[in-house]
Amino acid sequence: MPELRKCPITDRWVVISTERGRRPTDFSTPSAAGVADDASKCPLCEGKEDKTPHEIVAWRRTDSQPDKPGWQVRVIPNKFPALVIEGDVNRSGMGIFDMMSGIGAHEVIVETPSHNVTLADMPEESIEKLLWAYKQRITDLEKDKRFRYVLIFKNYGSAAGASLSHAHSQLIATPITPRYVKMELHNSRVYFQEKERCLFCDMIRQELGQGERLIYENEYFVVFAPFASRFPFENWIFPRRHHAGFQDMPDEERAQLARCMKDVLTRLKKTLNDPPFNYVLHTAPNAVPRPGKPDYWGTISYDYHWHIEIIPRLTKQAGFEWGSGLYINPTSPEEAAKYLREIM
Amino acid sequence: MPELRKCPITDRWVVISTERGRRPTDFSTPSAAGVADDASKCPLCEGKEDKTPHEIVAWRRTDSQPDKPGWQVRVIPNKFPALVIEGDVNRSGMGIFDMMSGIGAHEVIVETPSHNVTLADMPEESIEKLLWAYKQRITDLEKDKRFRYVLIFKNYGSAAGASLSHAHSQLIATPITPRYVKMELHNSRVYFQEKERCLFCDMIRQELGQGERLIYENEYFVVFAPFASRFPFENWIFPRRHHAGFQDMPDEERAQLARCMKDVLTRLKKTLNDPPFNYVLHTAPNAVPRPGKPDYWGTISYDYHWHIEIIPRLTKQAGFEWGSGLYINPTSPEEAAKYLREIM
Repeated sequence: MPELRKCPITDRWVVISTERGRRPTDFSTPSAAGVADDASKCPLCEGKEDKTPHEIVAWRRTDSQPDKPGWQVRVIPNKFPALVIEGDVNRSGMGIFDMMSGIGAHEVIVETPSHNVTLADMPEESIEKLLWAYKQRITDLEKDKRFRYVLIFKNYGSAAGASLSHAHSQLIATPITPRYVKMELHNSRVYFQEKERCLFCDMIRQELGQGERLIYENEYFVVFAPFASRFPFENWIFPRRHHAGFQDMPDEERAQLARCMKDVLTRLKKTLNDPPFNYVLHTAPNAVPRPGKPDYWGTISYDYHWHIEIIPRLTKQAGFEWGSGLYINPTSPEEAAKYLREIM
Repeated sequence: MPELRKCPITDRWVVISTERGRRPTDFSTPSAAGVADDASKCPLCEGKEDKTPHEIVAWRRTDSQPDKPGWQVRVIPNKFPALVIEGDVNRSGMGIFDMMSGIGAHEVIVETPSHNVTLADMPEESIEKLLWAYKQRITDLEKDKRFRYVLIFKNYGSAAGASLSHAHSQLIATPITPRYVKMELHNSRVYFQEKERCLFCDMIRQELGQGERLIYENEYFVVFAPFASRFPFENWIFPRRHHAGFQDMPDEERAQLARCMKDVLTRLKKTLNDPPFNYVLHTAPNAVPRPGKPDYWGTISYDYHWHIEIIPRLTKQAGFEWGSGLYINPTSPEEAAKYLREIM
């Protein structure tokens, strides 16, 4: 019998439809690596720095120059930004409608100087530098009073929305807090007010105790398939220690996050034949008080617990999902976790 | 400059990114008609009634037999249902998680006996019979106390999630009210409490007054591209007269809805080269009191106003959308409406 499950973080109900149970080999997804691609024209490769806007920050050799070779991770403005960086956030109304000028940052984080390396294949040290770049950009952009949120995400493979095959992440800073984060924030706030405990911490404890949805753990990080997984083989990375924002992660934890990401992306690649995927960093909105911030009140915010959501793109979203916000998942998270645990 | 726009019905913010402005010819979507397909094996064709589960209801010649030829619209259970019809809705909890048995109805509404006819090409009278079938099924299923909602939707073309090319809609009845409908319901309830007016009625009035997003109107129906369109060429069909539920639509309006649907689907087909699309009928949850229902209190519910949302599937949803619930739309609704108005 299928099961309806509710995610306590988002209040989302999901149908785990075991009648349609699907194993890894049942998904005939074109491998993400198969994207047609002309490396000689790639603007993200080392040596092509003049094909991109000026770099914002990079991890590079001390004897190298900005916008020249010698880097390992490089952050540049998106050439075709969805939001523009210059201007004020003007709010206006028109009858029942509300609007705002489309001010924001839209950046590309080039993960490697080499054209044919995927994140799963990069050494842990390179992933660490990528995570360093994420932190730099969030820390810088959250100072900009126009922005409420900094969203970092990665599209891997054409079916996941990537238009360039060279490994890269993206960042969009917005003058509003995105709706999904708002919902998570609201629910975890209500939970904390009632119980004086973090909802996410409680979920991690329960997942570690039950074990059946657990995929990977190390000293500082835990990966599991969420109880109400929307998508087959969806999995979330959580820091064990409670921090509202990604940028609050102590530097000593970064190496372990890099190891964790490499491990879980490798599991996905092996289990599902290098599938297209998205991942999204869910961190606290800029306005959440945190140690080191000028408006910090001296208490740690328990309202949020940052995490990374990884979504393999194996199924098509149809009218039902768009129309209802309810998802049908043909692979139970327990089964998905079992496959991902056992592959290595 | 791009614009952030808020939908007053869902509280969704959308980025209308004019920098990435796209016209109909910029979308290189494979035409939905191009789905590879073997008509001789289609189980939905007239004469193949023995290949499907027993029919639930059909519009058929009076001298014909159930599960035999002679029908024009035919409703059957889905052979691979996401939810199952037999059983009780058992609710349970496990630590912080909540679950429910996956009870529900999952039906297929075959729109025509012929294999190669699309909804846009069907005569208005046939679309009327389809709408009759929608009403029959909602009216029947809302009596089942286990179900909170009846969702009707259509997937057209493989990119929109259709797995059979023979024209059909689907219905899923669920023991919960889907999240998106809940949000719409909440916002329209708050609006009505404040203003004693229906939010949807106000929106229709404003759209008719402004005119720039209007696509089609007749005596009883209005079609416009919503102010905060999530997707290029998205458009919504609204009844002018206030009714919470689709099944409350007086029969004399049905012919005009059929005409309206044929018109707007033909406009989409011509403008965008027969694009894949989804449509979703948003109607009030089963529990909303309505004339003719046993729990009707004698007042008309102003909390909801049924409508149909049509979504052409022209763009890929990437990490940003999945991660934020915020959409980037490269075509402004004003421009989309202009193209759709002028095509005919």
